[in-house]
Amino acid sequence: MRRQAPIVTLTTDFGLRDPYVAEMKAAILSIARDVQFIDITHEIAAHGIVEAALALESAVPYFPDGTIHLAVVDPGVGTARRGLVVEAGGQRFVGPDNGIFSAFVTGGPWRAWELTAKIYRRHIVSSTFHGRDVFGPAAAHLARGVRPARFGPLVVDPVTLPLMGVRRGRGAVEGVVVHVDRFGNLVTSIRADDFVDDGTIEVRIAGGRLPLVGTYGDLRPGRAGALLGSNGRLEIVVREGSAAERLRARRGARVVVWRRRARGGRPSRT
Amino acid sequence: MRRQAPIVTLTTDFGLRDPYVAEMKAAILSIARDVQFIDITHEIAAHGIVEAALALESAVPYFPDGTIHLAVVDPGVGTARRGLVVEAGGQRFVGPDNGIFSAFVTGGPWRAWELTAKIYRRHIVSSTFHGRDVFGPAAAHLARGVRPARFGPLVVDPVTLPLMGVRRGRGAVEGVVVHVDRFGNLVTSIRADDFVDDGTIEVRIAGGRLPLVGTYGDLRPGRAGALLGSNGRLEIVVREGSAAERLRARRGARVVVWRRRARGGRPSRT
Amino acid sequence: MRRQAPIVTLTTDFGLRDPYVAEMKAAILSIARDVQFIDITHEIAAHGIVEAALALESAVPYFPDGTIHLAVVDPGVGTARRGLVVEAGGQRFVGPDNGIFSAFVTGGPWRAWELTAKIYRRHIVSSTFHGRDVFGPAAAHLARGVRPARFGPLVVDPVTLPLMGVRRGRGAVEGVVVHVDRFGNLVTSIRADDFVDDGTIEVRIAGGRLPLVGTYGDLRPGRAGALLGSNGRLEIVVREGSAAERLRARRGARVVVWRRRARGGRPSRT
Repeated sequence: MRRQAPIVTLTTDFGLRDPYVAEMKAAILSIARDVQFIDITHEIAAHGIVEAALALESAVPYFPDGTIHLAVVDPGVGTARRGLVVEAGGQRFVGPDNGIFSAFVTGGPWRAWELTAKIYRRHIVSSTFHGRDVFGPAAAHLARGVRPARFGPLVVDPVTLPLMGVRRGRGAVEGVVVHVDRFGNLVTSIRADDFVDDGTIEVRIAGGRLPLVGTYGDLRPGRAGALLGSNGRLEIVVREGSAAERLRARRGARVVVWRRRARGGRPSRT
Repeated sequence: MRRQAPIVTLTTDFGLRDPYVAEMKAAILSIARDVQFIDITHEIAAHGIVEAALALESAVPYFPDGTIHLAVVDPGVGTARRGLVVEAGGQRFVGPDNGIFSAFVTGGPWRAWELTAKIYRRHIVSSTFHGRDVFGPAAAHLARGVRPARFGPLVVDPVTLPLMGVRRGRGAVEGVVVHVDRFGNLVTSIRADDFVDDGTIEVRIAGGRLPLVGTYGDLRPGRAGALLGSNGRLEIVVREGSAAERLRARRGARVVVWRRRARGGRPSRT
Repeated sequence: MRRQAPIVTLTTDFGLRDPYVAEMKAAILSIARDVQFIDITHEIAAHGIVEAALALESAVPYFPDGTIHLAVVDPGVGTARRGLVVEAGGQRFVGPDNGIFSAFVTGGPWRAWELTAKIYRRHIVSSTFHGRDVFGPAAAHLARGVRPARFGPLVVDPVTLPLMGVRRGRGAVEGVVVHVDRFGNLVTSIRADDFVDDGTIEVRIAGGRLPLVGTYGDLRPGRAGALLGSNGRLEIVVREGSAAERLRARRGARVVVWRRRARGGRPSRT
């Protein structure tokens, strides 16, 4: 039976104008010819580790078991920061130990190893491009079947970043906008299980009060509302329009989910 | 004999910064591991159905028979709009029923089916991302050999949009600029068979008169002219320059093909 | 044993918004179904032959032997410029004869052939898109095993462009910024073997004097310095910042590597 080509995803801040992504893929193909590359994104803002961590958190759950996720947003290249291989949720991850894998080493079971074995690197390692010279080759060797423990010693304290969460008060949950997508939708730090939709929910952002709706079709064209987005996060949207433009809201803007019938009348700001 | 990997093309307005394209590909790979993805474009303007329809019209004819074209520009997600599988010209199409496949359900023979069978969707369908949860999985099942009729009932009245065409008058054909490409070339709604090149053709746009030439080499560097572009549409070009900048013309600008010897002397504006 | 899918890389100025890249890939797949595409970049500035030549020079060395590099930046389409197949360094190249392969036909051994055989083109060749109609099909036939000499006669005088180099003076080497990458790093025309790092090196650009360091970690965050980049070229960088912004330097800016102990005290400007 034909062996399936291993899937290697790529998440970087390299952009698509420079040849860096191609060099990294070339380094992988030189070791493992039979991989299928899926670009998650290369348009992470330069050095945007949190943005990359959130992109991975969104996309990873949809990939088949055994997928290898190579993530290189690496402002610390050329310093003493470690490199990692991580196993979590049936998936594997390769990249710098700077918090980019925070979503996967804080919840369920995971294991991590430091990338120290020199035989799994390029024979010459530049001081500025470990995506091509260290992380890409490690991903390629994983794709060829090398076991994670072969890359180096166990790591029990990978760097984790405080991915933006929520604060709770009486009858209210407060979060922030963590991402503005291409459509101008405002993706928030508030998740489906952070509140109970009892039919009295109202969402406040930028001085306005918006209804919680089930889908775009519940809004008239051009109207703003809040709904649970495709990744289980509360999103502020405008039907057939841009919530970011309409509400002049950006990443970091405060969002409050408020139960109108809650005791106390107004959301707490704890 | 080895089975060839099915080709799945993707045409969306998702952009390349967010992880949405990757999530859609992941959903497909979870069902059909052995596909070859070809991105047509993800840079369709948000909700630009006509732009997507024109991109498909351009690119589809060059793909091998049996290619599956997944197109998701879907401002109606979360409303009652239908989903479709279409068969036309030896190719197959999956996407929302909003006119995005207009070029393929107005000409030659075609058949269409509504996407209603729940077994060919993700087990959880979000209200906002049917590319990942409905259309992608349908494309994947097609790639695995599921026959179109299995997805739902025949559709005889798919939505069609008036893709921009031409008007004819005495000795003249009038069209519009339908697309400005990256080079500043102005792609028009006028096709090769809309006029006869009898050696007297002149093209009018933005107050200027341009010669009809055979190729860029017939123009001096920096000069504007009209020629039949690579997809059989009349294009206004500047050799080694941008016609859009030179002529300050945009999408929607009026273009007239005029035969200088035509009776009446001036192009009709019918 | 299973035959490996041939790798075809793509380097163009087509951008990612228009369907041109997809049409070119479709034309290839119609001839050779079993290829793996790797995009080097499609964001070369329109008609930027030197920029494309530099991107190829950077990326090509990392690909496995036998890779086919299709490069189409082609302002001369529709003129008498030749098309080429080139063999150099175990790799193969297809594209217009306009200097885009300069890095590969000036150094070590190479051979080139003109693309004249009509049987390896699309049956209809447009006058404006030879990437799809001539070069793509040629790359596809190469991928299927057609030998380069079958495409046409030997070419001994391919067009070469003066890729930006250096000038040497007493104790100094002068080059220019050839590329500003996404991070604002200034990639220069000066290479590792253009100077000897004897511990006294200083780099001058835009009126400032910068230290030569080994890696980012040798700089404090926010500080500028020079280092040997991942492709063996001297780069001006700012740790966790943009050198282009900090130094207000652009492509073409002059860069001088100066040995402080050199006799004469100041760099020569020869």
